[in-house]
Amino acid sequence: MITDRLIDRILALENPTCVGLDTALEYLPEALFATVSDARSAAEAIFTFNRNIIDAVADMVPAVKVQIAYYEELGPWGLSAFSRTVNYAKEQGLFVIADAKRNDIGATASRYAKAFLAEPSFGEGFSSDFLTVNGYLGTDGLIPFAEEAKRSDRGLFVLVKTSNPSSGELQDLLLADGRTVYEAMADMVASSDAEYGKYGFSRMGAVVGATHPDQAARIRARYPHLFFLIPGYGAQGGSAEMLKNCFDGRGLGGIVNNSRGILLAYRKRGGTYYDAARAAVLDMKRDLLAAIGGYHA
Amino acid sequence: MITDRLIDRILALENPTCVGLDTALEYLPEALFATVSDARSAAEAIFTFNRNIIDAVADMVPAVKVQIAYYEELGPWGLSAFSRTVNYAKEQGLFVIADAKRNDIGATASRYAKAFLAEPSFGEGFSSDFLTVNGYLGTDGLIPFAEEAKRSDRGLFVLVKTSNPSSGELQDLLLADGRTVYEAMADMVASSDAEYGKYGFSRMGAVVGATHPDQAARIRARYPHLFFLIPGYGAQGGSAEMLKNCFDGRGLGGIVNNSRGILLAYRKRGGTYYDAARAAVLDMKRDLLAAIGGYHA
Repeated sequence: MITDRLIDRILALENPTCVGLDTALEYLPEALFATVSDARSAAEAIFTFNRNIIDAVADMVPAVKVQIAYYEELGPWGLSAFSRTVNYAKEQGLFVIADAKRNDIGATASRYAKAFLAEPSFGEGFSSDFLTVNGYLGTDGLIPFAEEAKRSDRGLFVLVKTSNPSSGELQDLLLADGRTVYEAMADMVASSDAEYGKYGFSRMGAVVGATHPDQAARIRARYPHLFFLIPGYGAQGGSAEMLKNCFDGRGLGGIVNNSRGILLAYRKRGGTYYDAARAAVLDMKRDLLAAIGGYHA
Repeated sequence: MITDRLIDRILALENPTCVGLDTALEYLPEALFATVSDARSAAEAIFTFNRNIIDAVADMVPAVKVQIAYYEELGPWGLSAFSRTVNYAKEQGLFVIADAKRNDIGATASRYAKAFLAEPSFGEGFSSDFLTVNGYLGTDGLIPFAEEAKRSDRGLFVLVKTSNPSSGELQDLLLADGRTVYEAMADMVASSDAEYGKYGFSRMGAVVGATHPDQAARIRARYPHLFFLIPGYGAQGGSAEMLKNCFDGRGLGGIVNNSRGILLAYRKRGGTYYDAARAAVLDMKRDLLAAIGGYHA
């Protein structure tokens, strides 16, 4: 079961860090940026950057998260770079989280599920290990993703409490029944997948931002079976101290993403972008392990 | 202002119909389907189908809605067919709604906004007239879309009350302050864009399903400035009688999408898929106009 395998790898590496490949063109170092003259060369440069980052961190981190918006901005060639990045990361033994936050009614959701979770019918596709999903449409917008995930042994992270400053505007609203909107969302997720692996987590997890420690503690306590994808560490203001509430007494419960703090580490540290990324990952691993208090699984 | 221009076109054609290009491979007629052997030929066949549908309806309908999930299923080649479809429809004078339901935190939302609303930096892109958006992340996930829409004179439709059977599971929940979740969402949309065109509608509209007439009436009355994208007519069970609540006394207020009822009309009516699509559009126009009671704008 995929969540078990991801946790096995986190434990083997003693590292719950996920490297976010939100690769904007302007993040590239000057020499690589200078090779860009059209969509095709832009996509090539972005893939080269990602490949070098992946090579630098593949023995240290369990997963990468590829944020598709940055690739869509470059049109079909950008999506080709997305596909190549996903496939290269998988070849290097990394778990790949497609961060696409897809959502739609059932018939259409099943198409997205096929696009991101199934093996493609023809040639290069977007087949990843995990997909982020937005559940605003209700369970019939989630079930096609859950069914495809089960069929192909992949996983999902449904947006519950996001890391952005205004996430509370809708998500923290209090319902007449005493729950918050994000708890209603988490209830929907928890009721859509009651199959747990050896560590007690389901394949359908939750996105819970590092920037909201109180809500994270509530969600961790209330939903012991939900594994978290935790964005917001670093550039968005989340710290290891703030996100430790996402983990249980075993030190398990989530994987922590960092994008800009790793991709742009070279601008603060100097040296090559890949060496700087590796050094940033090592720092982050130490930081997270100290806050979580190590593993007791 | 784009919402004005869309309404001008609806009035000129006396037709609030939007043709949904949710083109699944299995919707293609046998002869076209037989040309498919890989992702490239699949994308070519889908574009050919779309082009013939567009040619058949371009003088009768104001807009097409292109549902990106069906193109993502085919990987980068599918996205190339999406791009070609969007651009061909615009060349034929149609307004194009990219139905992608994108959503993310601010920094990433601005990438999606650029991908779907701005002119592309290089070559072929996804630049459409309108984009569907999911507002679960709060206003800082909506504002980058609103800003890009204003900059490039494009429009948005934010999911408020969707057409699927289980949409109420989250959207209809009652808040402690007496609103429903979908009303809280609509309030967020209405407060994010207070600039109205000559017909009194903002460029940031709402998705309101044809299948929920009571909620549609509430939303229409409470938010007179929101223009609606109305899915759910036809195959999903929505009728003209059910969706007439989406329109105001002038007969204005929304555009009604139909995908399968038009793309697959040839299987019921016989003849070519494009002639059947044109006939289906004509029937739908009459059906909608009778229910709305004509235009008094």
